[in-house]
Amino acid sequence: MVVGSAVEVLSEDQAWELLATRQLGRVATSVGDQPEIFPINFYAGDGKIVFRTAAGTKLSEIAVNNRLAFEADETDNAGGWSVIAKGRARILVSTRDIEAADELPLHSWVPTLKYDYVELTVEEISARRFTFGPEPDRYGID
Amino acid sequence: MVVGSAVEVLSEDQAWELLATRQLGRVATSVGDQPEIFPINFYAGDGKIVFRTAAGTKLSEIAVNNRLAFEADETDNAGGWSVIAKGRARILVSTRDIEAADELPLHSWVPTLKYDYVELTVEEISARRFTFGPEPDRYGID
Repeated sequence: MVVGSAVEVLSEDQAWELLATRQLGRVATSVGDQPEIFPINFYAGDGKIVFRTAAGTKLSEIAVNNRLAFEADETDNAGGWSVIAKGRARILVSTRDIEAADELPLHSWVPTLKYDYVELTVEEISARRFTFGPEPDRYGID
Repeated sequence: MVVGSAVEVLSEDQAWELLATRQLGRVATSVGDQPEIFPINFYAGDGKIVFRTAAGTKLSEIAVNNRLAFEADETDNAGGWSVIAKGRARILVSTRDIEAADELPLHSWVPTLKYDYVELTVEEISARRFTFGPEPDRYGID
C-alpha cells in the first residue's frame, strides 16, 4: 500500500495567522549570486515583516539588493507548517517609523546598542501544513 | 544597569555536532538577484549536508546557480543556537551515490515518488549560541 504524508496548502490569511504565533524566522538575501541566510526575531502584521539587525552583513546586503525571502516554521513529531514570504526590504530611517517599531515586541538575536529596523513589504506569501506519515514507496510497489 | 544577552561563537566541530541533533533546516538559493528559501529535512556529516527534494523550483535553481546557504537552529525561552553553512550543491546522479543516500535517515517535506538527492559540500560553517536576557539599553543609560 502506498501511503503518503499529507500536504495542505493554506490561505494567505492562515499564513499571517501562523506568523503571529512565532518570533523566530530566517531571511535570505542574494548579492552577486551568493545567497546568505540569517536567523531573526520578527514581528509580522499589516502586510509587513519587521526585524532588527545589527550593523553589518545583513544591512549592507539589503542596500545592494533589497529583495528578501523570509521563512518561519514549526514542527513536532506529527507534522508542522512552513510559511514563505518574499518582497522588498527597507531600513527604517524616519523618527516616526523608528518610534513605531520601538513599540513592537521585537528582540535581536545579537545584543547590541546599535541596531536598525528592517521592514519587509510582503509581495508574495504562502503556507503549507504537513502531516508526517509513512513514506510513499519510491518504486510504486503496493 | 546595562545587561546584555550572551553570544558565544562556537567551533566548526561544535557546529557539526549541533547539526547532528536536528533534522529540519532551510536552504537559500539565489538566481538573478531573487533569493529563495525552502524548509528541508537534512542529514549532515563528513563535511556535507544531504537533503531530498521533489522536482521543481529548488532543483532548477541549483542547476542555474549551485551556491547554497543553509541554516538550522533551535531555541527555547532561555536561548538557542544557529548554524549557518555555505557551499556548492550538486544533484546526485550515480547509482552508487543514490544508493548511499538511500541509507541516510532522510525524509522529504513533500511526499512524492519522484525526488532527487542534493548534496551540499560545505565550504564555510559557523555556529553561535545565544542566551537571551534583558536587552541592553539602546541609549546607554545605567
